Amino acid sequence: MRMVDLIEKKRDGHELSTEEIKFVITGYTNGEIEDYQMSAFLMAVYFQNMTERERADLTMAMAESGDQIDLSAIEGIKVDKHSTGGVGDTTTLVLGPLVAACGVPVAKMSGRGLGHTGGTIDKLEAIDGFHVELSTEDFIKQVNDHKLAVIGQSGNLTPADKKLYALRDVTGTVNSIPLIASSIMSKKIAAGADAIVLDVKTGEGAFMKTPEDAKELAHAMVGIGNATGRKTMAIISDMSQPLGFAIGNALEVKEAIETLQGKGPEDLTELCMVLGSQMVVVGGKAETLEEARAMLEKVIENGRALEIFKQFIADQGGNPAVVDDVTLLPQAKFTTEVPSKEEGYISFMEADEIGTAAMVLGAGRATKESVIDLAVGIVLHKKVGDFVKTGESIATIYSNTEELAECSKMIYNSVEYTSRPVEKIKLISALITD
Amino acid sequence: MRMVDLIEKKRDGHELSTEEIKFVITGYTNGEIEDYQMSAFLMAVYFQNMTERERADLTMAMAESGDQIDLSAIEGIKVDKHSTGGVGDTTTLVLGPLVAACGVPVAKMSGRGLGHTGGTIDKLEAIDGFHVELSTEDFIKQVNDHKLAVIGQSGNLTPADKKLYALRDVTGTVNSIPLIASSIMSKKIAAGADAIVLDVKTGEGAFMKTPEDAKELAHAMVGIGNATGRKTMAIISDMSQPLGFAIGNALEVKEAIETLQGKGPEDLTELCMVLGSQMVVVGGKAETLEEARAMLEKVIENGRALEIFKQFIADQGGNPAVVDDVTLLPQAKFTTEVPSKEEGYISFMEADEIGTAAMVLGAGRATKESVIDLAVGIVLHKKVGDFVKTGESIATIYSNTEELAECSKMIYNSVEYTSRPVEKIKLISALITD
Repeated sequence: MRMVDLIEKKRDGHELSTEEIKFVITGYTNGEIEDYQMSAFLMAVYFQNMTERERADLTMAMAESGDQIDLSAIEGIKVDKHSTGGVGDTTTLVLGPLVAACGVPVAKMSGRGLGHTGGTIDKLEAIDGFHVELSTEDFIKQVNDHKLAVIGQSGNLTPADKKLYALRDVTGTVNSIPLIASSIMSKKIAAGADAIVLDVKTGEGAFMKTPEDAKELAHAMVGIGNATGRKTMAIISDMSQPLGFAIGNALEVKEAIETLQGKGPEDLTELCMVLGSQMVVVGGKAETLEEARAMLEKVIENGRALEIFKQFIADQGGNPAVVDDVTLLPQAKFTTEVPSKEEGYISFMEADEIGTAAMVLGAGRATKESVIDLAVGIVLHKKVGDFVKTGESIATIYSNTEELAECSKMIYNSVEYTSRPVEKIKLISALITD
Repeated sequence: MRMVDLIEKKRDGHELSTEEIKFVITGYTNGEIEDYQMSAFLMAVYFQNMTERERADLTMAMAESGDQIDLSAIEGIKVDKHSTGGVGDTTTLVLGPLVAACGVPVAKMSGRGLGHTGGTIDKLEAIDGFHVELSTEDFIKQVNDHKLAVIGQSGNLTPADKKLYALRDVTGTVNSIPLIASSIMSKKIAAGADAIVLDVKTGEGAFMKTPEDAKELAHAMVGIGNATGRKTMAIISDMSQPLGFAIGNALEVKEAIETLQGKGPEDLTELCMVLGSQMVVVGGKAETLEEARAMLEKVIENGRALEIFKQFIADQGGNPAVVDDVTLLPQAKFTTEVPSKEEGYISFMEADEIGTAAMVLGAGRATKESVIDLAVGIVLHKKVGDFVKTGESIATIYSNTEELAECSKMIYNSVEYTSRPVEKIKLISALITD
């Protein structure tokens, strides 16, 4: 088999066989296929797309390119959730305890990463004493005993994807549905997921700018999931404005606790109910989404979800008292209101810009070397559709510095007003279940 | 300017500016742009094509990527001819003296190269004493004095094209009209051509398999020529069977002499008249193709073309007596007939296979290290449309070995017969003059 022949085959719109795709990915991972051939291949895929079968083969070839996590010692169907990124996305913190309380085992491998705020692990580390340094045995035992554990990423998972992503980034081949879909799915499968729920974000703050693109990506991933024997569901959700009110690590933990108490922001709560319902269904604990939703509502009401969260914190060395007293979380030195300079209905709130404002405060990493300040961030008081009077606070800044010029300028820049009432943004635009 | 942005711009179907194309070619030539970005760019060009303006800019950027030959000291319009390759193509040997005799200066830079037979220089070296080691001054003086000179390729011409071609070869991006056209035209322009005539071959033995593809390539090159101020014309000619009868170096020199004497094969003669007419017109020595053709017929009839050829041989150290006595050319030890095993009309004669049969004898180079045997080759006696009786010779093999099994097998394999009369192949299917 010669790579140049496979490039031409794909270029000419033909379907590659399972063996051919395996040859491409294995050869590229071990350095037998050069970057310059792979980038030409990727551009051919960009133009010619891939069939569902090819996408599934590509996903499995990438999943098998490095270490694979074996979660078979955990009883039940291991469900993983993936969000395509966004601003102030606290869902993982809420969903873990929520679906675990419904009996779905949650064995979460999570990361830190760059961005507006920290990753799930950074957020959890806002809880005093909490750590993710578990042995594999303890991790598995904890999930079997208490249904929920989070561990840091370890091992050499999907090296093919890492190498491919770096290449795509500099060769104009990032924005290809089969390549995005197989990248995401391969990581979930290598991490041991039996079933997967996907939250595909759309809007200004998201990777997929239009609902159409988001839907195409969601269908591609659900198709791969079903073709590889991993039951998969997806939703399309709006990320044109931040989710919930809090952007910042400790601030989001507080918001997650409130949501698990049934007192969270409406949009975050609704998103968790919809994603959680899918997780409970693909996890085999309910037949229908309606039945699953009723279960989720019940574990919030009866406090079971919060109990699971407390147990989980205790299991991983954290102080569970934080759940009942959120003032135990890191507190910022200064709180500063951002008074509106205008009066009117908020017509637009740029999620990306507000996220960057939080990063400027220290809530997220600009580079790998950046140190996160867990206490700082922004809490919004208004969202799109809300009416604001001049002088009324649109947000509170939590900071450890009094130098807030850059941050507040970004917040002001992110908000647009109109004089006429504006419709609230529809949070979830589609459910994709097959 | 970032290469990744230019890849995406082309990928999305936008037109690159002159500066952007210059940036790509200059950066790639000097190693600032990596192969993996260039191959993605080339694949994007494959799918999105280039406008006439982009093609002209690409051609000039490649022509200017290395040394450029300055022929301004030669009086008149320097016309160059390019053929897209083929089997037994003796046209350059004939055309040089022919158009020089009409007053068009021919300052030819030529090569050796790999293939079925040698390049133009190899063929000329079949003439005892002939050499191409001329100083630039002597080269220019010879053209000014006697209108015709051939020199070996020297200097670092179009390094961008060399580097690009090597990359295209392994990344599935060879077969792209804008890339093929700019590659050919950049070399002609760097070699100092003021005007260009192109012979685009089509058929089994050629790079462009269909007349439609050949026509597209021809139009692309004429478009580039006109956009860069080089008057350019082209023809589409058949290469499904070999041109003329001779395939082999000395054998082709003999055939060229016969053609200059007005006794050459019909197809070779016609091709030379058509290409020669275009050369005389773009060289400014005739207003119309008809007028040019009459001039060419005259210089054959009155012996002026042959006289120019003799002078040219003498100028470059060769023995001009060869023109009057072709037995002075290298002679093969053995001549062996290839008797037909069938009776019927020849319906197909695979040019490529016959060319390879000649190479097997030693007429061409399989690798750079191969040594050419100038005496050997094949002379056909039959072409497509001819009737052949069983036992009648279809070709004579000229060899320095009696081991001819492989060669004659290839000749037999290349020929197909039918019982019904077959139309002769139309040699020239299109003239492209603007």
